[in-house]
Amino acid sequence: MRIAIAQVNLHVGNFAHNYRCIISSLENARSKGADLVVFPELSVCGYPPGDMLLSGSFIDRCLSLVGDIAQHCRGIAAIVGSPSRNSGRGGKSLFNSAFLLEEGRISQVYHKGLLPTYDVFNEYRYFEPAVQFSPVRFRGHTISLTICEDIWNIGANGLYPFSPPDIINKFNPELMINISASPFAWNHLPGRMMVLSENAKRFGVPLFSCNLAGGQTDLLFDGTSAVFNPNGKIIGSLKSFEEDIQVFDTSEINNSSSFLEMPGEPGEEVKHRLIMDALVMGVRDYFKKSGLKKAVIGLSGGIDSAVCLVIAALALGRENVWAILMPGPYSSDHSVEDAAALANKLGVAYEIIPVSDTVNSFGESLGPYFENTEPGIAEENIQARVRAVFLMALSNKFGHVLLNTSNKSEAAVGYTTLYGDMCGALSVLGDVYKTDVYGLARLINNEDEIIPRNTIQKPPSAELRPGQKDSDSLPDYGQLDAILFSFLEKQMDAEEIVKAGHDRNLVNRVIGMVSNSEHKRRQSPPILRVSQKCLGVGRMMPLEADYRSFLDNGKS
Amino acid sequence: MRIAIAQVNLHVGNFAHNYRCIISSLENARSKGADLVVFPELSVCGYPPGDMLLSGSFIDRCLSLVGDIAQHCRGIAAIVGSPSRNSGRGGKSLFNSAFLLEEGRISQVYHKGLLPTYDVFNEYRYFEPAVQFSPVRFRGHTISLTICEDIWNIGANGLYPFSPPDIINKFNPELMINISASPFAWNHLPGRMMVLSENAKRFGVPLFSCNLAGGQTDLLFDGTSAVFNPNGKIIGSLKSFEEDIQVFDTSEINNSSSFLEMPGEPGEEVKHRLIMDALVMGVRDYFKKSGLKKAVIGLSGGIDSAVCLVIAALALGRENVWAILMPGPYSSDHSVEDAAALANKLGVAYEIIPVSDTVNSFGESLGPYFENTEPGIAEENIQARVRAVFLMALSNKFGHVLLNTSNKSEAAVGYTTLYGDMCGALSVLGDVYKTDVYGLARLINNEDEIIPRNTIQKPPSAELRPGQKDSDSLPDYGQLDAILFSFLEKQMDAEEIVKAGHDRNLVNRVIGMVSNSEHKRRQSPPILRVSQKCLGVGRMMPLEADYRSFLDNGKS
Repeated sequence: MRIAIAQVNLHVGNFAHNYRCIISSLENARSKGADLVVFPELSVCGYPPGDMLLSGSFIDRCLSLVGDIAQHCRGIAAIVGSPSRNSGRGGKSLFNSAFLLEEGRISQVYHKGLLPTYDVFNEYRYFEPAVQFSPVRFRGHTISLTICEDIWNIGANGLYPFSPPDIINKFNPELMINISASPFAWNHLPGRMMVLSENAKRFGVPLFSCNLAGGQTDLLFDGTSAVFNPNGKIIGSLKSFEEDIQVFDTSEINNSSSFLEMPGEPGEEVKHRLIMDALVMGVRDYFKKSGLKKAVIGLSGGIDSAVCLVIAALALGRENVWAILMPGPYSSDHSVEDAAALANKLGVAYEIIPVSDTVNSFGESLGPYFENTEPGIAEENIQARVRAVFLMALSNKFGHVLLNTSNKSEAAVGYTTLYGDMCGALSVLGDVYKTDVYGLARLINNEDEIIPRNTIQKPPSAELRPGQKDSDSLPDYGQLDAILFSFLEKQMDAEEIVKAGHDRNLVNRVIGMVSNSEHKRRQSPPILRVSQKCLGVGRMMPLEADYRSFLDNGKS
Repeated sequence: MRIAIAQVNLHVGNFAHNYRCIISSLENARSKGADLVVFPELSVCGYPPGDMLLSGSFIDRCLSLVGDIAQHCRGIAAIVGSPSRNSGRGGKSLFNSAFLLEEGRISQVYHKGLLPTYDVFNEYRYFEPAVQFSPVRFRGHTISLTICEDIWNIGANGLYPFSPPDIINKFNPELMINISASPFAWNHLPGRMMVLSENAKRFGVPLFSCNLAGGQTDLLFDGTSAVFNPNGKIIGSLKSFEEDIQVFDTSEINNSSSFLEMPGEPGEEVKHRLIMDALVMGVRDYFKKSGLKKAVIGLSGGIDSAVCLVIAALALGRENVWAILMPGPYSSDHSVEDAAALANKLGVAYEIIPVSDTVNSFGESLGPYFENTEPGIAEENIQARVRAVFLMALSNKFGHVLLNTSNKSEAAVGYTTLYGDMCGALSVLGDVYKTDVYGLARLINNEDEIIPRNTIQKPPSAELRPGQKDSDSLPDYGQLDAILFSFLEKQMDAEEIVKAGHDRNLVNRVIGMVSNSEHKRRQSPPILRVSQKCLGVGRMMPLEADYRSFLDNGKS
């Protein structure tokens, strides 16, 4: 049996696109002699459809598309993902299903049993978990077909009380197929590959995975679908961060003697390459799926906006990116020079719009109210907000989408101006710590000095008051990022972080800053997610809560 | 047996407050001769705790507080809600639990079986659903103790495959106690009371409900706890929108011959009174729980900001509210006059800060780029954003919290300026349709002309270009709101709305506007929720999705 894995890039709610994409992959697979083509989870509607699933006409369209695709399945079969209706008594009204299509019709349907409802996933919001499982039969073969999370409940103390593949295994399936929409994080692949490999080994059969590729707003799907032999070795894998289709002959899998290595924990260089590829895909797909082409970016001369501009130029083409330099009262000369040098190097058009006159105009109107007060946050924020008004005016006038250039470190501690540098339709670097932004800059400059050395070497500054440096307000970024990573990604409590060697006062200060800035992040643009704990999608922290229990009380 | 219902106002994560509140209610109940005091769902940590539940030290604090409260339970018992750890193999690591505390210790624990995961609820994100249920025993009594959703799975085709009270009923309980955190919506109470009444009738025992009171950011809890006799009649009910404690003697419930009427679907007047009370509570608790006192509001002379100012003055005291009048190039004279008249009438301090000079300053800097273009959205948005920068500058300088004054109709169709009139820490009217804002104004002016008649009578206008009126861009608000209500709250498809008598083109236009402005609302402030479908909390629509399947294709 020849199985094609069609790792496609689908668009939520865009049935016309998804239909074309699925049919052309089907015909491509047919031309390669495939018997069966496998598509990702919820392929007909895209992932994640969110509350669109609550619309009856949306579900009708999904099911109608499944029928349309089935019409093309003659001589070749397909497995596609779609929501389906729960016709039983009781429970949610939908299942998350996989349809086996053959000979012009739906021949079998499988319903997902384990519904991830944590971090970025909300599947139990929409779907009823299936509790009965059996394999699908195709041309005399018995196949253990499952959907994503269904095969993840392994180990001593799983998140769910049972495991669908264990139940299906009683029917002695010959092979496993898992369709998924498993999102990217820079350190996620080793775990994902391990789970797939463990399943192949545990049941002693080949396993075919088909994972979604492409970006859907903030969620990025890397693809990297793979095929495993019964010993859990990787026989083949599909591309990362793009569409791919490959055909595998089941009879050759047991005989194959060449294996791919299991991916290990990424080192710094691999990490930054992965993040870079993911962000470029994310920006590109955001624009493509919005039907938009052009971006505008505020270019400060600092490292964040520099890296952001490079990513935008790679994703959209340099001709579609517009850089706006907005020197203010406390901008240093080198800021404009560095920014212009980068734009010139990239061949990106740029404008210089000084903002001091407008900032002063606010100052004059506010004079009667601000007199006898010390200049502070209010005055600094005016500058950041004036820049935002300029950027949004250009965006509104010419239809360019404003990209946000904030990084994760400053977003985490609230070292940002709401309605100022927090503006934008999409945050490109909001899930990238400052230390990793430097890593991206090194990667960009690997062969040639694209980003001016001065941008990389100068001490980070918001330039909102004379001589200001980030280090006036924040700990050293190395320390800050280490504490943030422990608190956010590793979910360590303050006490554990202190025990791991960080200063107690600093840990409490950082956690306090994170907790006190939730209200700002609630209004942030969507953030391209590249880590296992993004500050946007997948974080549901309450506001106006009392966060003191998060601090280390020193009682340890 | 004398049962006290302690309908308290708790604060998420504020263990010190919650402890004080619970202990003082306990002592109050003791002084009234109660045997048992009942507190709301998740009382020790407040509701909804969100991702705070993922912190181990947070759970430790919850359980430690349960133990501390138990110490006070001597001679009197209490039922409190708290997360607890799932010590079994498999499943999520927490339960949503109710603890019976007596004689200084935890005597019994009940785990919630039905975990609402829809609209504003995300409980399966954190909790494992219990599958085994039994009653609690207290001083020889058998009590069917359940948590909120547990008693809601009634009717022919429930959301869950089983019902905990059915299972508990096999033990012949003498009475039911249901602790809850059931949020307010203006038309929710009849349904909630019906469910409680049906449960009492179905099992033929008295039912005591204890519901949370108070606002937690956007979610508002009205309390309105109640007691039902075995025939499902309301024997007594607690206050709405505030704390209350009442003691009921179980032996008197069967004999009581005076009943309260079941609430019916609210008429327009009741609706607006309910919304008003809820919003005042929401604003007051937002500030109290933030540890803040003072608000600033941009007062335009229009009806939205006028109603908002009255609500803020009621919630915070007129001395804690500051109104900023910012006439711009296209403001009419009456706008400033109407706004000043309202501020004077309320005794609220106000300032007049003209914005035209600053708007012109932007215009000058943008001149080279904007020349030969038609004035449009870009120019209009600059005015809205300049006002936002002024308001935020005053907020940052003096610590007043900016309240957002947008209404639901304009937010729904995107007739708003992101980073302009969409700014603010909290949206007061974001879940109130424009036609209901008029209803609130009528209520406010019921006895005296608080809001100037001109503000109410003039045609709505954003005053961002000469002679502009809302009706240039939007359908009549009566029609618009009717279509929005059908689409959002009643989840009707376009075809159904057309069939209900609305013009097909208009329906498609409105749904298109709603769908095309999701990206704006994603960055909106939290919105006080007063309806069954708020555009903030409880809505999880994808961005960059293709919404065409929502439109009516005319095929019907």
